[in-house]
Amino acid sequence: MQKLTLVKVGGKVVENQDSLSSLLVHFSKIAGSKVLIHGGGRSATALAKQMGIETTMVEGRRITNKEMLKIVTMVYGGFVNKNIVAQLQALGIQALGLTGADLNYMEAIKRPVLNIDYGFVGDITKVNIELLCPLVEQNIVPVLAPLSHDGSGQILNTNADTIAAETAIAFSKHFQTELIYCFEMPGVLKDSNDKTSIIPNLTLNEFKKYQEQGIINAGMIPKLDNSFRALNKGVNNIRITNIEGLTSGGTTLKI
Amino acid sequence: MQKLTLVKVGGKVVENQDSLSSLLVHFSKIAGSKVLIHGGGRSATALAKQMGIETTMVEGRRITNKEMLKIVTMVYGGFVNKNIVAQLQALGIQALGLTGADLNYMEAIKRPVLNIDYGFVGDITKVNIELLCPLVEQNIVPVLAPLSHDGSGQILNTNADTIAAETAIAFSKHFQTELIYCFEMPGVLKDSNDKTSIIPNLTLNEFKKYQEQGIINAGMIPKLDNSFRALNKGVNNIRITNIEGLTSGGTTLKI
Repeated sequence: MQKLTLVKVGGKVVENQDSLSSLLVHFSKIAGSKVLIHGGGRSATALAKQMGIETTMVEGRRITNKEMLKIVTMVYGGFVNKNIVAQLQALGIQALGLTGADLNYMEAIKRPVLNIDYGFVGDITKVNIELLCPLVEQNIVPVLAPLSHDGSGQILNTNADTIAAETAIAFSKHFQTELIYCFEMPGVLKDSNDKTSIIPNLTLNEFKKYQEQGIINAGMIPKLDNSFRALNKGVNNIRITNIEGLTSGGTTLKI
Repeated sequence: MQKLTLVKVGGKVVENQDSLSSLLVHFSKIAGSKVLIHGGGRSATALAKQMGIETTMVEGRRITNKEMLKIVTMVYGGFVNKNIVAQLQALGIQALGLTGADLNYMEAIKRPVLNIDYGFVGDITKVNIELLCPLVEQNIVPVLAPLSHDGSGQILNTNADTIAAETAIAFSKHFQTELIYCFEMPGVLKDSNDKTSIIPNLTLNEFKKYQEQGIINAGMIPKLDNSFRALNKGVNNIRITNIEGLTSGGTTLKI
């Protein structure tokens, strides 16, 4: 099977022009077919503030009322996505920016209200990559914004780490897939104050053990949960690293 | 040659949810391959106001400084485009939202400063539809936002009427193209206060004559100039009409 590399980049990397430029140069050098998935939360919060709209986060998740949905649609689907696409084009990459509504590639339902009403937040129900596969095979590079849709005309704010994992799972039926979570740290660290304390390989059992011991940073846990799920569902390789580690290095997950 | 219908909708139609819904229903019923091109200026002006940023227009054109470019990228490429795409998907249309940076389909240069500095405004230099043709042939419907790029990473604000005309010209080499300018009036009117005074057919000579006589509304002139240019460059048919006239009616232009 042909190889496909999916890179998910977080807000801190993507929302600073210097680190974004560096990321895109490194990303453009990855050989073969590739997909970029981006966040943009900090820019959304900044725009909300400029518009006099309050941002409410619960357990790290954004409460997305109608006004906040407009903001994330503008910031993720417009500003962040289109600037990345234009900058990749400048690097000779045939980029195509997408939300889940485009080509109906990511269907979701509005998250049911249990204890917390997250508003217009999507829980992914179906990933349709049939139309994306031939594009990816032609070296067109999808740039995915963290937005899905409900099939009834409603855009939904959707976690970028989860979009990355679900997209990688869907592509793993057609490609040999590597998913790379690229963030500001060089890998999963044993000591968050020591950037050299990278765990080079991490199994699910070791992850559970480290988690019990409180060694792994709380912020890493959803990313790792997503990753082990994706590994179990057929993604061939998953790494967690920073920009410099895009081609090799960081933490490699093992089942 | 296969038929392709391109519909350009202006801000007044697209920025009101009722007229947008009606437009999309009518648009979805057009048989065969189609493309939608949209504006969004009123939403951009409204967002700018909410952000405390002043909008300056010169001869109907928006001065696009760095802040205004961010706004139009968010509004045209994000909010307006993605909501149209999601609503078309709900109507069973396989829509794909694009700016000129996506698939590098519309290259432009930043408008040179003569008497007026329009800022980040693009003058179109090249339309690349090679990657769009196979998509359109599969009944994927491109939804085009009025943004181009300069190939060096810069998004540029670009007039939607001109994008529609240039896109139609490019497609006319591969398809039998009809371009429809859809706005709030039922056609080109002899008397702007009388909606029944539609000119059913308009030749370039008649247009010039009406223009000299001051019969045609000043706001229509750039649209008609664009249209006659597109007709001369190979677009097969051009009509100017409102939502109800999408399938037939309005003013048909003749060389």
